[in-house]
Amino acid sequence: MPPKEVYFDLENSGYVPDDVVDVMLPYFNKRGYGHPAITHRLGWEALDLIIGTKELVAKTLNLANPENLVFTHSGTEANNLAIQGYLIANRDKLRGKKVLVSSIEHLSVIFPAQFVSELLGLEVIKVPVDKEGFVDPEVLKYYVDRDVGLVSIQLVNHEIGTIQKLRDLIEVVRDRNPDVVFHTDASDAYGRVRIDLRDLDVDMMTLSSHKIHGPRGVGVLYVRDGVRIEPILRGQLSVEKLWPGVELTPLIAGFRKAVELAFNNFEENVKYLTSLRDKLLNGILNSVSDVVLNGPSGDERAPDNVNVAFKYVEGEALTIELSGYGVYVSSGSACSSRFLEPSHVLLAIGREYELAHGSILFKVSRYHKGEDIDYALEVLPKAVDRLRTLSPLTPRRA
Amino acid sequence: MPPKEVYFDLENSGYVPDDVVDVMLPYFNKRGYGHPAITHRLGWEALDLIIGTKELVAKTLNLANPENLVFTHSGTEANNLAIQGYLIANRDKLRGKKVLVSSIEHLSVIFPAQFVSELLGLEVIKVPVDKEGFVDPEVLKYYVDRDVGLVSIQLVNHEIGTIQKLRDLIEVVRDRNPDVVFHTDASDAYGRVRIDLRDLDVDMMTLSSHKIHGPRGVGVLYVRDGVRIEPILRGQLSVEKLWPGVELTPLIAGFRKAVELAFNNFEENVKYLTSLRDKLLNGILNSVSDVVLNGPSGDERAPDNVNVAFKYVEGEALTIELSGYGVYVSSGSACSSRFLEPSHVLLAIGREYELAHGSILFKVSRYHKGEDIDYALEVLPKAVDRLRTLSPLTPRRA
Repeated sequence: MPPKEVYFDLENSGYVPDDVVDVMLPYFNKRGYGHPAITHRLGWEALDLIIGTKELVAKTLNLANPENLVFTHSGTEANNLAIQGYLIANRDKLRGKKVLVSSIEHLSVIFPAQFVSELLGLEVIKVPVDKEGFVDPEVLKYYVDRDVGLVSIQLVNHEIGTIQKLRDLIEVVRDRNPDVVFHTDASDAYGRVRIDLRDLDVDMMTLSSHKIHGPRGVGVLYVRDGVRIEPILRGQLSVEKLWPGVELTPLIAGFRKAVELAFNNFEENVKYLTSLRDKLLNGILNSVSDVVLNGPSGDERAPDNVNVAFKYVEGEALTIELSGYGVYVSSGSACSSRFLEPSHVLLAIGREYELAHGSILFKVSRYHKGEDIDYALEVLPKAVDRLRTLSPLTPRRA
Repeated sequence: MPPKEVYFDLENSGYVPDDVVDVMLPYFNKRGYGHPAITHRLGWEALDLIIGTKELVAKTLNLANPENLVFTHSGTEANNLAIQGYLIANRDKLRGKKVLVSSIEHLSVIFPAQFVSELLGLEVIKVPVDKEGFVDPEVLKYYVDRDVGLVSIQLVNHEIGTIQKLRDLIEVVRDRNPDVVFHTDASDAYGRVRIDLRDLDVDMMTLSSHKIHGPRGVGVLYVRDGVRIEPILRGQLSVEKLWPGVELTPLIAGFRKAVELAFNNFEENVKYLTSLRDKLLNGILNSVSDVVLNGPSGDERAPDNVNVAFKYVEGEALTIELSGYGVYVSSGSACSSRFLEPSHVLLAIGREYELAHGSILFKVSRYHKGEDIDYALEVLPKAVDRLRTLSPLTPRRA
């Protein structure tokens, strides 16, 4: 066993802190374990929990009506519900029209958009981003015409932390075509970047529990009144109008606690995350040569995101090397690593194949301490050095 | 608070026993909380768990290759994946063809079949059942011709406990049209009725964790080699080939434990369930007048299922009345109760509207004791009597 363990792979999967696990436990077999639509104590308690959690989430978003929120099993499912559900429900009027997504969207936006568009006869167009991952409003203007039906641009990018200037982008879209429905995947913003739905004119928005140290198994989709979407899973409806089956009440209880923890002292949390992020990032830049930051810096970057490309190193190998030291990260596109293909996000911001492959994603958390960052900074140069010594790509000095 | 509580509403949602919860806990924040496709300790542990659980489930089914199993978030999602996934993947060759489902299938089979068929130009035909819920092979023969593409008939009905003579039905289908793909929803059979895939010639099969006292949040779909299906949710693939996102490892750990508990002493468990079922059913028939059993009896009925219609009583009212006594059940179609529509299953077996509405579903469990049944039998006649006294439908004796 390594002397210490530090888990930074929070993009893919997080640990759920004990105080979140604790609130889940009674819901497995003591209270609220019934079906929330059934008229007995265990059902009523489940219903209370579901309603209460939606009220809390609505409050954090400045959303007047909690009934505009629907629970799903994941952020991936919420994105699928938004994209597939909207396109399928409106297939007659949308036939032949266009769906715009940014070229760095999560694959759970891009893939359903492509698949359903093919099925229904629409066209998906990827809007390019600049070298820091920003969609330029002037560029977007060029893409939005009367034939666009749906636009999906995330609030914060999951890999490179770009905080999109979403209000400007929405203004462009509304101005060019008031009929467009605008979806944003806010999974990587929620709890870390302020979201105010009175101010942010989106029609649909995705949230994910595991991205705020809640348990996996809970996603949320906000759907504005009047936006017609179809469920994508079908069966017996319970409390959710757009989602069949029985809600995972224990996990929803955990999510509620995670929301409380993220939004109590929100500003302090964000300040703390930012300080850890900068300590880690600056530490890497100062102690390892030939390193490139992926994505923007400062206030334009998510407070928890550090993504750097190590030249002359294969990211997958570095992930394994760091794992030996007890430092857990993911490489390239975290999510794509199974296939060892470079991340589509990194390619979209213009990273060369090799640099994309040598990229490592760290996410910091309020559960990290300064000494965790110190430990990571102690072992990283050693791990990178050893791999570079082995790599034929490393330039040899005489 | 009532003097005692007995939970029979296991069709809709179950409690998860402490020994199942206990094995889940480490996976929230101590081991295997990583993404199973990522190369670090926490990912490897997650992958081990997923592979090990599939191996265990495969063993319980006499299935040679565990890789034919895919995890989903629920039985509902597994049914959707089977039906939607098969029809969408094979839409070109299936256009204009027919989908057969029994008229008592779970709504998570009927609804996706209807929706996707409409979208793709297929026809859904409901095969009738007899008054105990059986599909007659001679009747099925009449429906299966060369234009049938998919058949879905469940192994055990979720509401009335009918154990379908599935081997005979499959034989009819194979004989009439060898190209048909046959799906069965075995959620209400698994762990209670023996399933042997060397003997049961199905192409796809659904299982659900919560139906065996595992946590909600885990479904399983078996897909035979060579059956082409499309994922219905799209995004980054992890370990599952047909399902995107990160597996809910803590819940999978709980499911694994629940499988162990259901299959250790399988025969004894079933015998115990059957004894509780018969004690409850006979007790009701002996102590309450004007009661009708819904579904078959004896060996043709699932060992955990008691579903009876109380004449002159509104089932929803009885559910609430019993809840006051601490006895938790569901009415009519459990799942349909939100809408206060009578169960489509009960209507399909020929129950009149009023009797369907007055039906109550109990499921017994190995966690019930004889005294739980005694308590239910003590309060049921009181509850029924009180409601009948209030009901204008009750025949008045002079």
